[in-house]
Amino acid sequence: MSERISCSVLQNKVMSAEQAATFIQAGDRVGMSGFTGAGCPKELPTAIAERAKAHHARGDEFRIDLWTGASTSPVVDGVLAEAHALNRRLPYASDPTLRRAINSGEVDYLDPHLSHSAQHMWFGFYGNLDVAVIEVAAILPDGRLVPSSSVGNNKTWLDQADKVIIEVNDWQPRAFEGFHDVYYKTALPPHRQPIPLTQVDQLIGEPYLRVDLDKVVAVVETHAPDRNSPFAPIDAASTAIGEHVVDFLRHEVAAGRMPASLLPIQSGVGNVANAVLAGLGNSEFNGLSAYTEVLQDGMLDLLDDGTLAFASATSFGLSDLGAERFNRDIEKYRGKLVLRAEEISNHPELIRRLGLICMNGMIEADIYGHVNSTHVMGSQMMNGIGGSGDFTRNAFLNMFLSPSTAKNGSISTIVPMASHVDHTEHDVMVIVTEQGLADLRGLSPRRRARVVIENCAHPDYKDALLDYVERAEKARPNALHTPHLLDEALSWHQRFVDTGTMQKQA
Amino acid sequence: MSERISCSVLQNKVMSAEQAATFIQAGDRVGMSGFTGAGCPKELPTAIAERAKAHHARGDEFRIDLWTGASTSPVVDGVLAEAHALNRRLPYASDPTLRRAINSGEVDYLDPHLSHSAQHMWFGFYGNLDVAVIEVAAILPDGRLVPSSSVGNNKTWLDQADKVIIEVNDWQPRAFEGFHDVYYKTALPPHRQPIPLTQVDQLIGEPYLRVDLDKVVAVVETHAPDRNSPFAPIDAASTAIGEHVVDFLRHEVAAGRMPASLLPIQSGVGNVANAVLAGLGNSEFNGLSAYTEVLQDGMLDLLDDGTLAFASATSFGLSDLGAERFNRDIEKYRGKLVLRAEEISNHPELIRRLGLICMNGMIEADIYGHVNSTHVMGSQMMNGIGGSGDFTRNAFLNMFLSPSTAKNGSISTIVPMASHVDHTEHDVMVIVTEQGLADLRGLSPRRRARVVIENCAHPDYKDALLDYVERAEKARPNALHTPHLLDEALSWHQRFVDTGTMQKQA
Repeated sequence: MSERISCSVLQNKVMSAEQAATFIQAGDRVGMSGFTGAGCPKELPTAIAERAKAHHARGDEFRIDLWTGASTSPVVDGVLAEAHALNRRLPYASDPTLRRAINSGEVDYLDPHLSHSAQHMWFGFYGNLDVAVIEVAAILPDGRLVPSSSVGNNKTWLDQADKVIIEVNDWQPRAFEGFHDVYYKTALPPHRQPIPLTQVDQLIGEPYLRVDLDKVVAVVETHAPDRNSPFAPIDAASTAIGEHVVDFLRHEVAAGRMPASLLPIQSGVGNVANAVLAGLGNSEFNGLSAYTEVLQDGMLDLLDDGTLAFASATSFGLSDLGAERFNRDIEKYRGKLVLRAEEISNHPELIRRLGLICMNGMIEADIYGHVNSTHVMGSQMMNGIGGSGDFTRNAFLNMFLSPSTAKNGSISTIVPMASHVDHTEHDVMVIVTEQGLADLRGLSPRRRARVVIENCAHPDYKDALLDYVERAEKARPNALHTPHLLDEALSWHQRFVDTGTMQKQA
Repeated sequence: MSERISCSVLQNKVMSAEQAATFIQAGDRVGMSGFTGAGCPKELPTAIAERAKAHHARGDEFRIDLWTGASTSPVVDGVLAEAHALNRRLPYASDPTLRRAINSGEVDYLDPHLSHSAQHMWFGFYGNLDVAVIEVAAILPDGRLVPSSSVGNNKTWLDQADKVIIEVNDWQPRAFEGFHDVYYKTALPPHRQPIPLTQVDQLIGEPYLRVDLDKVVAVVETHAPDRNSPFAPIDAASTAIGEHVVDFLRHEVAAGRMPASLLPIQSGVGNVANAVLAGLGNSEFNGLSAYTEVLQDGMLDLLDDGTLAFASATSFGLSDLGAERFNRDIEKYRGKLVLRAEEISNHPELIRRLGLICMNGMIEADIYGHVNSTHVMGSQMMNGIGGSGDFTRNAFLNMFLSPSTAKNGSISTIVPMASHVDHTEHDVMVIVTEQGLADLRGLSPRRRARVVIENCAHPDYKDALLDYVERAEKARPNALHTPHLLDEALSWHQRFVDTGTMQKQA
């Protein structure tokens, strides 16, 4: 037995993943740990998938609801979707196999804001939670749990589930103890109190997750790495976006709108985000702080070189090399980073109080400042909204970042009308592509259009966008607040569906 | 001189509105009091409009930026728009003359969430504020100001403006003293602290507005009523909507999801809102509380009969009769209602903490749960988003209410795709028309569509909506998350623009 399990009550519940999976029944609602691949259960999902396949082979139904922290990994969403074992899935997801199952109509996908997911479950909006399956780094003698590489919704799933299955993964550093801050004073209305956090590096909770030992039906020992993100070299477009962002922050500091050490930064996931972090690392900025969802490799670099003094998140999103480096040098980061529950990392109260600078990727933005983060061509789910709504709405300053084209230029990121709106014109402040930056603050929709087209659109699409606005203005002279040609607004997307490009054929 | 002005320094600054208006120059940014017609300045706007006309007659430019609390009245937005004296206007607006000026492209309209308007100004996102023009009920000997029938953004405009003009309106009850709670501990990040409010009836500030006496350039005495809302009898559709809402709340209480005295309610403005309040008044519910923007006649009724124990708002939105009744019986309401700044009435931190039940009107909703609150047929500004985003996003439970058709049936409130999205599918929980109520919680977009169509759409449009979904599902079998026919999604709106009805002609 692993020395990671030092609670005798729970030692007696150690079993194989296959045995543990028998506690999960068809139709169950199952809450799992996991956020961007970090801290997912490593064995139960496969055991559940096998159980589902065995049922299906006998002609029986076997599907579960799967609730997580956010995206997980091929060994969670992938194997369960592959086995046709999923009924309803929430919140954020991005696994390719699961995505196909959602877009084929097989899996019902719900996409609440990450700060809403735990509380809506607790409010009773999704039904009762049957089982929680939570990965931890260790179990203390009194049964308290040392979280692993993400916290996500684990606190709520552990509290609310009827039954609990714990995976103890000794690949996760035992030294994780002390890297988490789990706040246990949330409550249902009308009993809520102010959350006392006023500084990014403030600890307001405790370093452990609690679990009612009577609810634990199984403990499974695992030894497997997180699914880490492939590290791609930063390309020219991402570098240019990073430079525009850093220049803009300089400009804001010079204008007296924020301190020289900025305000805490939130940064989305992916190569563009890493490029922005690299841009900050190469700049004069230092002593910054981060209050964000996910700690990427770029954040470790900034912590190493002092650009970043402290980082708060709910999860890691490292490359294999990044994870190896963190696990090896973990003591170097003690006291410099903390993982919290996503209801805290993404809490509107805290985001607004701290005054974050929020930078997130996007699929497309329209000329009037609406942003689509989730759907390809209006219908196809690409990924969930994640925390982008929590951060954007409550930010001191928000920015959406993307290269100006996708798919070798066949898709323009800047379109006449967003084919799905996740962030509205009331919310979006700044749009950045490799072409440049559009500062929409203080501009009416019609004025935004010119700035977005001029500064952000790719040259191949600029004329067509301007032509659209000009014709829209002429067509409805008494509707000039947000001029649109309704029969043409989504025609670029339709053209892509029909021909594989948004470009008009000559 | 009115006995309402008991500060000698300010007594010396009393002058006519015409004299006071000379402190306002072409190009100035002017912050005025006023929220839904309550507490607007009564004379300065006309004097400014006259000044603008005189300049225009000489061939000179004269336009100002106008920042308010929310909508104002014909004697503010109306006269200034009529005089072509407006350049940029924010936040919420709904005046017909101003709306025409916005939709003709003459006035730039910015539409931030109400909880954002004061802070974005303070952050420096809109530029410096030159002059504040604020109505009050009285001035105390030490210069503190007794607010009148709305607080809105007055605190911020008074604090941030270079110059201040005060209108003292003795139509407003002198007894207003003690009905306001102005919180002065807001700050810019990184200096923000938790806002200590945990109960609707808690007072966290002071009953007065502060002003730097050195900044006051003029005091103007007025005697004029607020622009009050016409009171329309509650029609059958509104009554039905109110009944659906009350039934649903009963259902939620029975399911154990909220206490028998509910959670604090927020209710939008208008006849549907009044009908919901009447429905609550006729129900078994009592001892409720309200944490809302605007106190309508319906709220006074509920306070009178005990259905409502306490109401917090930022403004009144009464009929003439309602205002007469309140002003006459004001002592009856002392300790039962309070007006706060809109940054507090609409604060995400407080809305989420208190766990509000939020009910707002809408222009249209689409079958997947996106709501349009602001634009007619995608382009024409109807009114601002107001606080509907603040409340919806942070609510415990949110609902959007509207009759299922408008313009004698020529417009369906339920459409294939919203022509403008102010509230996203990630946010909207419940849609209610006179036809019924659609509870979208826990449903994927595709499942929502059936429920919205079945429960909320008008029978005249139901078949066409179902037909749309079914054809959309067939057209793109690998895009079934949110099925759309992109070339048809906005065709109902285009048909209305072309033919005056969304109905297909036989």
